[in-house]
Amino acid sequence: MIFMRLCRYHQKLLSTHRLKLSQCFSTDKGSSIRDGDDDGSKSDFRHHKGTRDCNNQQIILREKVLNKIIHCFKRHGAETIDTPVFELKETLTKKCMYGEESKLLFDLDDKIGEQLSLRYDLTVPFARYLAMNKITNMKRYHIGKVYRRDNPNLQKGRFREFLQCDFDIAGQYDAMIPDAECLRIISEILNSLDLGEYKIKVNHRKLLDGLFTACGVPRHLFRTICSSIDKLDKVKWDDVCKEMVNHKGLDPTTADKLGQYVESYGNEVSLDVLLKDEALLHQKKAVEGIEELRLLLKYCEFYGILDKVVFDLRLARGLDYYTGVVYEAFLQEYETGLRSKGGDGVTVGSIAGGGRYDDLVGMFDSKGNMVPCVGLSIGVERIFAIMEHKRAESGDSKFPRSEVEVYVVTPQKKMLEERMRICKELWDADIKAEHSYRKNPLTLNQFQYCETHRIPLAVIIGQSEMQAGIVKIRNIATREEHDVKRKDMIEEIKIRLSAMKQQEE
Amino acid sequence: MIFMRLCRYHQKLLSTHRLKLSQCFSTDKGSSIRDGDDDGSKSDFRHHKGTRDCNNQQIILREKVLNKIIHCFKRHGAETIDTPVFELKETLTKKCMYGEESKLLFDLDDKIGEQLSLRYDLTVPFARYLAMNKITNMKRYHIGKVYRRDNPNLQKGRFREFLQCDFDIAGQYDAMIPDAECLRIISEILNSLDLGEYKIKVNHRKLLDGLFTACGVPRHLFRTICSSIDKLDKVKWDDVCKEMVNHKGLDPTTADKLGQYVESYGNEVSLDVLLKDEALLHQKKAVEGIEELRLLLKYCEFYGILDKVVFDLRLARGLDYYTGVVYEAFLQEYETGLRSKGGDGVTVGSIAGGGRYDDLVGMFDSKGNMVPCVGLSIGVERIFAIMEHKRAESGDSKFPRSEVEVYVVTPQKKMLEERMRICKELWDADIKAEHSYRKNPLTLNQFQYCETHRIPLAVIIGQSEMQAGIVKIRNIATREEHDVKRKDMIEEIKIRLSAMKQQEE
Repeated sequence: MIFMRLCRYHQKLLSTHRLKLSQCFSTDKGSSIRDGDDDGSKSDFRHHKGTRDCNNQQIILREKVLNKIIHCFKRHGAETIDTPVFELKETLTKKCMYGEESKLLFDLDDKIGEQLSLRYDLTVPFARYLAMNKITNMKRYHIGKVYRRDNPNLQKGRFREFLQCDFDIAGQYDAMIPDAECLRIISEILNSLDLGEYKIKVNHRKLLDGLFTACGVPRHLFRTICSSIDKLDKVKWDDVCKEMVNHKGLDPTTADKLGQYVESYGNEVSLDVLLKDEALLHQKKAVEGIEELRLLLKYCEFYGILDKVVFDLRLARGLDYYTGVVYEAFLQEYETGLRSKGGDGVTVGSIAGGGRYDDLVGMFDSKGNMVPCVGLSIGVERIFAIMEHKRAESGDSKFPRSEVEVYVVTPQKKMLEERMRICKELWDADIKAEHSYRKNPLTLNQFQYCETHRIPLAVIIGQSEMQAGIVKIRNIATREEHDVKRKDMIEEIKIRLSAMKQQEE
Repeated sequence: MIFMRLCRYHQKLLSTHRLKLSQCFSTDKGSSIRDGDDDGSKSDFRHHKGTRDCNNQQIILREKVLNKIIHCFKRHGAETIDTPVFELKETLTKKCMYGEESKLLFDLDDKIGEQLSLRYDLTVPFARYLAMNKITNMKRYHIGKVYRRDNPNLQKGRFREFLQCDFDIAGQYDAMIPDAECLRIISEILNSLDLGEYKIKVNHRKLLDGLFTACGVPRHLFRTICSSIDKLDKVKWDDVCKEMVNHKGLDPTTADKLGQYVESYGNEVSLDVLLKDEALLHQKKAVEGIEELRLLLKYCEFYGILDKVVFDLRLARGLDYYTGVVYEAFLQEYETGLRSKGGDGVTVGSIAGGGRYDDLVGMFDSKGNMVPCVGLSIGVERIFAIMEHKRAESGDSKFPRSEVEVYVVTPQKKMLEERMRICKELWDADIKAEHSYRKNPLTLNQFQYCETHRIPLAVIIGQSEMQAGIVKIRNIATREEHDVKRKDMIEEIKIRLSAMKQQEE
């Protein structure tokens, strides 16, 4: 799912937590660092502003999060696809699907003969994939980087290259069944990531359209008024109203009517309230939207997530192509209630979002064949930032533990051959092993390496061990050493490693 | 490691196997396909020539290969990094590290204010990363896509976006110890992938430089003559000789001398032969190169891979920045001996390669601090093609098996709620489950879905089962059905799934 607003929320959220979170976005450092500037930009060579490198520790944390998400997608029978990092520019712009945001596309130099742009999201490539391969139904997830020529702000976590994580269900099915599963998936993922309490807000584009008609909004202003409504999580009604009247030319009376409606929001009860509204009841689209939302909430009950889902008439989502249900999930820890209390100053962030877009794939098909779709996007960059923040707060910032299981140590000179032969045996036995790249390393340096990298075991081989046909196995943490017959070395190490793993679990 | 030649080899190899392999590169198809053109390019929207999508089946195969490779990298204690898909163009071109190949860079539109290019390989971003973060030692792997504005030829497997898979050891260490580990890693990976017999050819840039001096090649022609020598695996000596004399201005006598040397190649024995060569013995660099190669072969013996490694004086590798040992691995099934027999016509492909490049990182450091490096690149795209070819030959082209474990079936109408409630229970229990997105699907369609997607179990819930407080569990393959109490459903399914998994193993 296209997920622009997440980024904006993300930026805002991060700016409020700037002091705490900014450390998550600092230039990463390797293990052995010369004295020098902290700021990579002072180096001769650097990367483009708004992009960043990831070090091993960050990648491990990211993979942990992504594996949980992928596990959930697969639990729901999704497959995955991969698409090129760039698309024909006309694919991304011809149908104006990004509207004004098209200016944020990263174009490639056109000396190539075709005008290409880096992908802006994963939804349009998915729609292009379906249409090009004439696929009429598919449940797919896609995790990949996307590119936006936004004004970068590293401290606020606004990057020009960032990861998106999408799940979509394409196909002509009965109303609200796939839509409810998308909400269930968001819920499963947020539960599994243990990010704290959350709510999923839902609304319906048809209901909004009916509401706009009932209030007298002219048809050609529907989409732009939708964008204004969508700002209500960050901006007060008065300001949104001003924008609509002064900049978008909406009639002040119409704006006032709209204002009365957007105050009536909430859960299923509010839906019933809306159904008693005379003006809305005359709008066929509004009634359709309300009926579909009621069905959705019923299915949410069957799926055991009704307590997480709330109806919110102010939720609109920014993109033009949504045609049905829209939703966004918010962590309550970070939700400070502009939407719910009309307060100001503190920003709100969504952690997942999505909706139904039934017309997008048809735009890519020469015969206009429609493939209705509904999908979701998980705000993984934001989740990474929260996780890194939590790790930093928990003080778990000591030197990252190496995955290496055994380090081979020689206490005398001229023992390189023995170290190499033992490493060969360890690698042959699929044990993660290292030894010094020096011919004659100091014994102290070798043990220090084990301790710094928290390698659990060392195999020690010296002249006396060689003569006795043994090796010493040392537990690095306890510094205990035991003699083991050379021929029993592998078996003995495997027993110890497996015992250590059990202890950890 | 930069790995340009692999692609060229790959193209050549594939062209000889074109009929068989071309199917591996065809446009992929989804599960439900409308009648229509096979050729995606006839669609309104398509992707850029030289790029492609990957479907789920291809991704599963790729991940299987990559996981084996990553497992090996981790066995040797490597960590991983991630870098942006584009770099400042000056990073990629200032030091002319790609020479003539710079014209193949994919540039971004410069309206962005900075001139950016898509990364051409993973080695230069690694060098930039080390220099920028002032890291003096690191063992890292990196798997990522790179971009070359080469003339695409999909049938030959030449793409403009393709995956590279690199491992490098950076740091000031004793001679040949990390270099030998790189050869060991190539060997471990090729063993684990079970691609058949292979040889790793090694040579040394210093030896080549000494040889050039001994033959009278002028200093300024060293690198370009190196490129010519490197073509000897694909082109006959006569043609290479013509190129050197007619196009590069080499003296014909010098070329003849060079020709005599490049006939004397082989394993350690040949190294000894070279050491008896008066002219070479006067070249300090040549002697250094030979000594280092002898040490390398000794270490290869300790690491148990000497039988895989052969010295080959004709191996040069195309890139300018190599400064020491260079190597390439060849599958014997695809090696047809231009190098070894002087034959012609049939092409040769390398499946991995690399070498030592001690000066590259220093180019990115403002103070010119050197970080010596040695690394390797695994030709994963080529390996994917071979694997897909093998799978196609083995006839394993039936509908891919879904990962879904249980499909929930209702044989009567108006049972959606029960299907949803059962799915909820299954998902809660971390069982991969699906049901129809139709309100009232036909029973036959539901079972057909299970059979097509090879889902092992179905849970059947009808009116009579509901009244009896049971569900039916059906084994899709055997069509056997058993009644199970509703409350025992999850436990019973877990037992059956685990029994099925054991049977498969």
